[in-house]
Amino acid sequence: MTTTGAETPRSPANASIEDVARRAGVSSGTVSRALRGLPNVSETTRARVIAAATELNYTVSPSASSLASGRMSTIGVITPFVSRWFFAQAINGVEEVLHEANFDLVLYIDEDGKTFQSLPMRRKVDGVLLLTLPSDSPDVSGVRNLGVPVGSLHVDIEGFSSVLIDDVGGSSMATDHLLALGHRRIAMVTLDQHPSVPFRTGQDRSEGYLRSLKAAGIEVDPLLIVNGESTVEGGMRAGSELLSRAPRPTAIFVQSDEMAMGVLYIIRRAGLHCPEDISVVGFDDHELSNVFDLTTVAQPARAQGALLAHHVLDQVRLGSAPQTTTLKTHLVIRGTTAPPPSGI
Amino acid sequence: MTTTGAETPRSPANASIEDVARRAGVSSGTVSRALRGLPNVSETTRARVIAAATELNYTVSPSASSLASGRMSTIGVITPFVSRWFFAQAINGVEEVLHEANFDLVLYIDEDGKTFQSLPMRRKVDGVLLLTLPSDSPDVSGVRNLGVPVGSLHVDIEGFSSVLIDDVGGSSMATDHLLALGHRRIAMVTLDQHPSVPFRTGQDRSEGYLRSLKAAGIEVDPLLIVNGESTVEGGMRAGSELLSRAPRPTAIFVQSDEMAMGVLYIIRRAGLHCPEDISVVGFDDHELSNVFDLTTVAQPARAQGALLAHHVLDQVRLGSAPQTTTLKTHLVIRGTTAPPPSGI
Repeated sequence: MTTTGAETPRSPANASIEDVARRAGVSSGTVSRALRGLPNVSETTRARVIAAATELNYTVSPSASSLASGRMSTIGVITPFVSRWFFAQAINGVEEVLHEANFDLVLYIDEDGKTFQSLPMRRKVDGVLLLTLPSDSPDVSGVRNLGVPVGSLHVDIEGFSSVLIDDVGGSSMATDHLLALGHRRIAMVTLDQHPSVPFRTGQDRSEGYLRSLKAAGIEVDPLLIVNGESTVEGGMRAGSELLSRAPRPTAIFVQSDEMAMGVLYIIRRAGLHCPEDISVVGFDDHELSNVFDLTTVAQPARAQGALLAHHVLDQVRLGSAPQTTTLKTHLVIRGTTAPPPSGI
Repeated sequence: MTTTGAETPRSPANASIEDVARRAGVSSGTVSRALRGLPNVSETTRARVIAAATELNYTVSPSASSLASGRMSTIGVITPFVSRWFFAQAINGVEEVLHEANFDLVLYIDEDGKTFQSLPMRRKVDGVLLLTLPSDSPDVSGVRNLGVPVGSLHVDIEGFSSVLIDDVGGSSMATDHLLALGHRRIAMVTLDQHPSVPFRTGQDRSEGYLRSLKAAGIEVDPLLIVNGESTVEGGMRAGSELLSRAPRPTAIFVQSDEMAMGVLYIIRRAGLHCPEDISVVGFDDHELSNVFDLTTVAQPARAQGALLAHHVLDQVRLGSAPQTTTLKTHLVIRGTTAPPPSGI
């Protein structure tokens, strides 16, 4: 047998829950409730308990805690990415709320559905947050079978809490802005569309664009709709393709700011100028959109994560029913949009 | 009393470890070892156990698992940020390795040291990964007192595993590149320097710059060293300050790509051209550095996270001693560096 980490000496000696209770002048039950973030403990008492526990270097025994309450105070967060702007911001919001509530955040990065296959065998969690997964995925039923509260970001799923944004309205707003400037030949770069993972977000953003063109009486040119694979590099490829069209589009609506940055790069590389030769609108209000002077549809990503965490914590701690909230987007007009070049 | 999530019905009925063992044709002990990612289980057997457990929708009981083994198969990851490029990449690398080993990743975002204050009261973990924290912080002793293996990214700490990069060498390489092009008046934008949190990374990158200037016989002008607060916006402020110096620097070494993007924005806004009027070198090889055509010092962020996770898992599972690995950086020359304008 090899030595495991469990045999590493623990120092200093662990204080017991009774030691903490004595130091804080409360009952053991109150210490337990305070440290697990349960309601019905005043903030003053909670602060006193935390101070005592910190002083004594007290470690909650997860086994004891679990056996006593049946709960592990853990929320599983399943996200397809951490390095993309939207997901990093949402995770920040989730973590802030869970941390404040004394819940642990167990992170699963799931680009290809593998997490769901193994999730039932993993640690029990009190709740699960799905950061943007398609409602018709078989994965969703796997999560449902865990029998715990679930929150879904950007996708409304029966029986789950959700936080949505108005993707159709936001995209329509972006397209209307270009139409109002006088553009008629407006291209679109879409988010990733795995055949197996039909993310709702991309579909809704496409629908907003199509609706606005239709309302303006403009026939859609399918050659002006190109996929950008949700990445900066994909945006570059999509941009190259669109610049080769004849006649060239005079404006491009891009379904994410990261792809829009790739499109802007390609416009500059081609010796063209934005917005003089071609206008670009993104979607997100990425922290770098200011640097790129990018006109974009702003969505509050961090607030969405925080709100979703609150909804699921309400279910876990108070037995509340699932809640759905839809947040507004707004257009931020910067320097990448202008009327089309004269003579077109 | 309010209803808690623990009372939510769990469906389907939980299979026992014996059910899984019977289905997989192995002992319960083997099932336990296979699912906890312990060594001495062949990959074939592990696959068979996972298949059986998936089929039966088996959920590991963390309490039972903990009581049997003393280990929770959980690694705590403490990071100051998730939304900055380096940390998102490192977390990706960590998650990939932990997932493969069947360990859970409990994420703590700790911008201000609060996590450390409450960590001892939280769930016991098998190990901790510190994504870049100063070695002389009082927080470090708090983590040490947990008595579990610890890995530290970018900072070498006695008794901990660590993965380092040669920050001094990388910065010296960047500065030497500018010197070789003929620059003599070279400014520097430094990483955040909280008085309370003296990150080693920024100090080392400054040292590389100072060494190279000294070796070239150039006296350091303190007015050419400005702090950029580690952010794009901070880079903008630092860039504005440097452009107001007389005479203006002909080149700027920036200690992170995100700050360099802010500097490039300010150069463009001032009506100047990069690299014709002023050269810029970054540090990271951020995924957008290509879009900005930014010359930079590349570091393998994702690999650093993966390697650190491996080191700590070796300690947890095999009882290995702490390991330290230093990875190389290399210069990626793109379009933001050129000889200084003639006549200077």
